[in-house]
Amino acid sequence: MFREAIEQMSGYVPGEQPRGMKLVKLNTNENPYPPSPKVVAAIQAAAEEGLQRYPDPSASAFRNRAAEVLSAHNAEITPDWILCGNGSDDILTIATRAFVDQGRAVRYPWPTYSLYKTLAEIQGVRHEAVPCEPDWSVGFELTAPSDDVRLVYLANPNSPSGTLLEPGEVAAIADTLDCPLLVDEAYVDFAETNCLDLVRTNERVLVSRTLSKSYGLAGLRFGYLVAQPHVIEQLAKVKDSYNCDTLSIAGATAAIDDQAWLADNVTKVVAERQRLDAGLLAAGFDTVDSRANFVWATHPTGQHEAIYQNLKAEGVLVRLIRHPGWSGGDDGLRVSVGTPAQTDTLLALLATL
Amino acid sequence: MFREAIEQMSGYVPGEQPRGMKLVKLNTNENPYPPSPKVVAAIQAAAEEGLQRYPDPSASAFRNRAAEVLSAHNAEITPDWILCGNGSDDILTIATRAFVDQGRAVRYPWPTYSLYKTLAEIQGVRHEAVPCEPDWSVGFELTAPSDDVRLVYLANPNSPSGTLLEPGEVAAIADTLDCPLLVDEAYVDFAETNCLDLVRTNERVLVSRTLSKSYGLAGLRFGYLVAQPHVIEQLAKVKDSYNCDTLSIAGATAAIDDQAWLADNVTKVVAERQRLDAGLLAAGFDTVDSRANFVWATHPTGQHEAIYQNLKAEGVLVRLIRHPGWSGGDDGLRVSVGTPAQTDTLLALLATL
Repeated sequence: MFREAIEQMSGYVPGEQPRGMKLVKLNTNENPYPPSPKVVAAIQAAAEEGLQRYPDPSASAFRNRAAEVLSAHNAEITPDWILCGNGSDDILTIATRAFVDQGRAVRYPWPTYSLYKTLAEIQGVRHEAVPCEPDWSVGFELTAPSDDVRLVYLANPNSPSGTLLEPGEVAAIADTLDCPLLVDEAYVDFAETNCLDLVRTNERVLVSRTLSKSYGLAGLRFGYLVAQPHVIEQLAKVKDSYNCDTLSIAGATAAIDDQAWLADNVTKVVAERQRLDAGLLAAGFDTVDSRANFVWATHPTGQHEAIYQNLKAEGVLVRLIRHPGWSGGDDGLRVSVGTPAQTDTLLALLATL
Repeated sequence: MFREAIEQMSGYVPGEQPRGMKLVKLNTNENPYPPSPKVVAAIQAAAEEGLQRYPDPSASAFRNRAAEVLSAHNAEITPDWILCGNGSDDILTIATRAFVDQGRAVRYPWPTYSLYKTLAEIQGVRHEAVPCEPDWSVGFELTAPSDDVRLVYLANPNSPSGTLLEPGEVAAIADTLDCPLLVDEAYVDFAETNCLDLVRTNERVLVSRTLSKSYGLAGLRFGYLVAQPHVIEQLAKVKDSYNCDTLSIAGATAAIDDQAWLADNVTKVVAERQRLDAGLLAAGFDTVDSRANFVWATHPTGQHEAIYQNLKAEGVLVRLIRHPGWSGGDDGLRVSVGTPAQTDTLLALLATL
């Protein structure tokens, strides 16, 4: 009945999303703060207004406002440079389907967001995971010539490391590749630089963003892609016509409109990231200097699963991430930045373990 | 840069969704009534509660309640028989990707929902459109043996005709096929029968539903599939982990919980469908006996485009649908059932044209 590729794959396993329990939840890089009240108000108004109508297939309200906001960084960007998705996972799916024929390949630095492998498996294409150095620097094989590679994913900042490539480094990668480079900027609002400018000069650079992290809207499912208009035009053929719903378009538009909220939230999260990092170091972990809303921590004992389980037993969820065979270590803990009280709880617990 | 299949396809064209204009909108089969107030209340409460968290990846709240409601019809159905989607278009995409390898084929009666062809084009597979008879009965070639066909779509009720195959007829088709049959029941709540029972006895029958039409929730994007649990399990690998957002899960759960609202709404729409059909006949059209929330109308003059344009100029949007080369005629008008006042406006206008 099923394609062989589907029967053989195991499927993406999202982070635990326990319901109805009181937890310190630091496992899926959600924002610890609720979104701007303007977002909630916009959603509630949209709900009153008539859900019986289909949404705008091109999410113009969001694209118009986002273009204005983004053009403060890159004056070229107009609404036709933007494609909206049901979360940036939808954007990643659309790009994979648009660029990679069955039997071809995708490539990405590794360890990274494990969805890239899953997307390749669903599409029935090979995945070339190019190992990072133990310090998380990107392996040079990422740009090696290939007859088959049709798309390279680059999470920047990367997960689970939080490491960031500067725009010049990303430009050099893009210029060496002869296939599209999808720069997944899910966490970029917590960093100091981004790759939006590269889109203007290289049609093969695509930048994806999400409102899940820095806007506190993981529950809304809204992401977008920035690329040259002729690229957006082809990708739009692959998306579901009504991939974004009326409520998420209204909420996302209000969110990107409230840049003051974003700046304030990012300031809080970045400050707390520094405190979390210092606390983890003090607790005996090695950490990586993060540019995202999480910190990658490994312990000299290597007892990451035991630490994860002990924390979970006490109601603190972090993410145990395994990448067996990597020269930088087989596993570790990715800890999302929470509120100061959540950091306190975590650090107090670690001190007792 | 792009797959050849993508560059060559033209893309699905959704019905016009004009914004900010006062229109009698009878072109995309939306419900003319707003959804149950309980849906709006559930969404507004969910918006307050914390959109910063990811949604439940398996939409358990909806699946639990839907299983209870559906098991009134089919006692076998438990939550593991249900897969939720970002609209039933998402369900159709998931099934296409799960069953049909590149180079294989899909099949469907034609004329029908034009998205089936688009889904085949995106996936890079052949599409076999099996012409209906001029009376819209399904052509026998739908079940002809084939080495390549991996999935058959069957819209039931069909669009644009509104015609319905009885469960026994669908069972006979499914039993003859050696590939899955996806029965697209987007409009089934307006009909007297459905194919839910077939799922129990034939693992190759999949039934998709949407809340867009009968629940008045086109703006919410929520659909679901009913199939045997081992089928659901494979399909779940292909969906985006968080394909349904927090707000749509809350709204959809409240919607399916309010079966009294559904029954009342269906009664109103079906009554108005009869009045619309009678009015179109009186205006000189030929119509097809519809089991959906729209009526297919053709005019002996064949001047469908002119009628469509004249109506549009007066602020009444209907859907001009073309299927050139079909033995039943090259085109016609699909008119969604509106409110009594909207029907009056349409019929008064037709009388003057």
